Amino acid sequence: MPLVKMVEYRDAPPAARSVFDDIMATRKTDWINNFWKVLAADPPTLARIWDNVKRVMAPGALDPLTKEMLYIAVSVTNGCEYCIHSHTASARAKGMTDAQFAELMAVVGLANETNRLAEGYRIPVDPQFLPK
Amino acid sequence: MPLVKMVEYRDAPPAARSVFDDIMATRKTDWINNFWKVLAADPPTLARIWDNVKRVMAPGALDPLTKEMLYIAVSVTNGCEYCIHSHTASARAKGMTDAQFAELMAVVGLANETNRLAEGYRIPVDPQFLPK
Amino acid sequence: MPLVKMVEYRDAPPAARSVFDDIMATRKTDWINNFWKVLAADPPTLARIWDNVKRVMAPGALDPLTKEMLYIAVSVTNGCEYCIHSHTASARAKGMTDAQFAELMAVVGLANETNRLAEGYRIPVDPQFLPK
Amino acid sequence: MPLVKMVEYRDAPPAARSVFDDIMATRKTDWINNFWKVLAADPPTLARIWDNVKRVMAPGALDPLTKEMLYIAVSVTNGCEYCIHSHTASARAKGMTDAQFAELMAVVGLANETNRLAEGYRIPVDPQFLPK
Amino acid sequence: MPLVKMVEYRDAPPAARSVFDDIMATRKTDWINNFWKVLAADPPTLARIWDNVKRVMAPGALDPLTKEMLYIAVSVTNGCEYCIHSHTASARAKGMTDAQFAELMAVVGLANETNRLAEGYRIPVDPQFLPK
Amino acid sequence: MPLVKMVEYRDAPPAARSVFDDIMATRKTDWINNFWKVLAADPPTLARIWDNVKRVMAPGALDPLTKEMLYIAVSVTNGCEYCIHSHTASARAKGMTDAQFAELMAVVGLANETNRLAEGYRIPVDPQFLPK
Repeated sequence: MPLVKMVEYRDAPPAARSVFDDIMATRKTDWINNFWKVLAADPPTLARIWDNVKRVMAPGALDPLTKEMLYIAVSVTNGCEYCIHSHTASARAKGMTDAQFAELMAVVGLANETNRLAEGYRIPVDPQFLPK
Repeated sequence: MPLVKMVEYRDAPPAARSVFDDIMATRKTDWINNFWKVLAADPPTLARIWDNVKRVMAPGALDPLTKEMLYIAVSVTNGCEYCIHSHTASARAKGMTDAQFAELMAVVGLANETNRLAEGYRIPVDPQFLPK
Repeated sequence: MPLVKMVEYRDAPPAARSVFDDIMATRKTDWINNFWKVLAADPPTLARIWDNVKRVMAPGALDPLTKEMLYIAVSVTNGCEYCIHSHTASARAKGMTDAQFAELMAVVGLANETNRLAEGYRIPVDPQFLPK
Repeated sequence: MPLVKMVEYRDAPPAARSVFDDIMATRKTDWINNFWKVLAADPPTLARIWDNVKRVMAPGALDPLTKEMLYIAVSVTNGCEYCIHSHTASARAKGMTDAQFAELMAVVGLANETNRLAEGYRIPVDPQFLPK
Repeated sequence: MPLVKMVEYRDAPPAARSVFDDIMATRKTDWINNFWKVLAADPPTLARIWDNVKRVMAPGALDPLTKEMLYIAVSVTNGCEYCIHSHTASARAKGMTDAQFAELMAVVGLANETNRLAEGYRIPVDPQFLPK
Repeated sequence: MPLVKMVEYRDAPPAARSVFDDIMATRKTDWINNFWKVLAADPPTLARIWDNVKRVMAPGALDPLTKEMLYIAVSVTNGCEYCIHSHTASARAKGMTDAQFAELMAVVGLANETNRLAEGYRIPVDPQFLPK
């Protein structure tokens, strides 16, 4: 049960509805997922976060599927159930195969392990790795 | 200062030296970075972790640069200084551009933000996102 | 399902019951929430943790509502479902408005984003920020 | 050493310089801290993040000092050295006393402890805490 | 609902079935828990992770119960529901008493608190603690 | 550089000095480490945290070395530099061998990996693991 009341499209005030419309138009879908319905309880936050997502996740130097997989990597590391489900669904919709997902998870698992070995042993950064 | 003495190539016992040789051969480099010198204080762990890294980071359904970027996404989320430096250097060596790095960082930052909004508001997962 | 059996008031040994009584007297409530019922399986821990909570959350240089909001900020960052619910309920009981909660969540989200940008880019601390 | 070259005011392209100017005007200061100099390597990200910070940290239902303290609570929980220093300096500039800082740290420490007790014991959320 | 289809023993391909057999033989049990059924969707990962678990958790300089308790300490700190349940069950099967579990949880809680005090106050490491 | 001025023994007010004396008597040492000198800026917090540490880390159902190793496991997972150094030094003083430390680190690394696999794949808890 979310901590604020979710705002449905039909009940959304104009400031939220125009964001909902832009989300659906940008994503070429006809429904709004719960993340946005919750943020709509505070329309300025809804508009601000959507603006950030739209810009950051747009195709650029990285393709959209790579960006979704990076999102999954962060969400798994943080253990965010909602974000794991939503971004895995999104990555699959963008073409992520079972084999790619399995490798993604293997990298995330391993990185979490070696991160702790590096932190735990207090390993000094090699000068060769420092930016010039 | 690391918590165990780093093992240099010239001082490495045979079990560690053969791993060092495989690391350099696999990576086509002529030096060993501190992560492996520290693990070499415990040769079975050195061999085990290298075996994992070699398998998980090999080209497969995901290309090596994508895997490095996923590694960076995890390392930044965990705040692991050593891993951020080593995998950013590695990603750059595999061709990551400044623009790709900037977008990677933007995605990681945003994912950490929206992870907390989703967790904090206790947003229920949409049935549409659940695996079939 | 909790990992230890929750201790109800009527079944509590004297050492736990006296803590329960103090919790209800301090908070001016007539019920005990599950956190304390679980800790009551180990009465010395129950008494120790309650003593800490009572001291730390008492009004002081910071008012009780600000303290509850700080608690929420930590709990959201850690993704602790129980703590998010219990401290949000507590903050609302102390007068937190919807607008305050929305701003709190916006700050927590943003801080998690910029934390990762600062860590990820390895930004050096400005000398101006260091304590004198 | 940061992973990208910091952009100084005198070298900033117009898109970054106008953000720098707005930061100094908004904050009534005459210098730019390293966080922004690093982001300036990617002007669209600089502008986007500054726009978020400016909106989220503006006075609203919560006063600016409370917002800074929430920022510190998150930054301490994440162990972000840069953010701890910068936001503690900022909170002090906004009037945070030694006693307030000590209480803030005590709450953050305790919340991290009880978060783990709640998660670790798998304590079920009391129905009384759920939103109506 | 897991993100990939769990593989039951009767449906497992030979590569997964031989790992399942080794898990049951090593643990002297007659069933496979969900963690391995999920990994079996990707047999090389199943074999790799099991090989790591088998080696790392084998009796050595530390006894198996101590290793399980360390696993719980990490899992509680990360808030991993599955791992908390599975390793607590495993530790209990290895003889962990209620009193030991309560002390383990108390240490984990306290360590999470003092970790944040140390990080938050930016406490310098005493030279006496550095390795010689 | 710590965020508050460290209090040396010779400058400590009586409330802090008596805690310092108890720390040295309990630990049979003749010096105070920086953690306590920093907390001494706020004597009630110094007394409260020391009281917690003294109780939780005392021998009980778990021996003091096991408790130190659990502390290290948490500190490595959180990446707390100060705590890793101080508790590793303490564990070594209590007899932790190189082989035990290597196995501890291996368990912590692996647990962080499998935690993420379990969280990431959203693996359901087996009914067999639930408490009776």
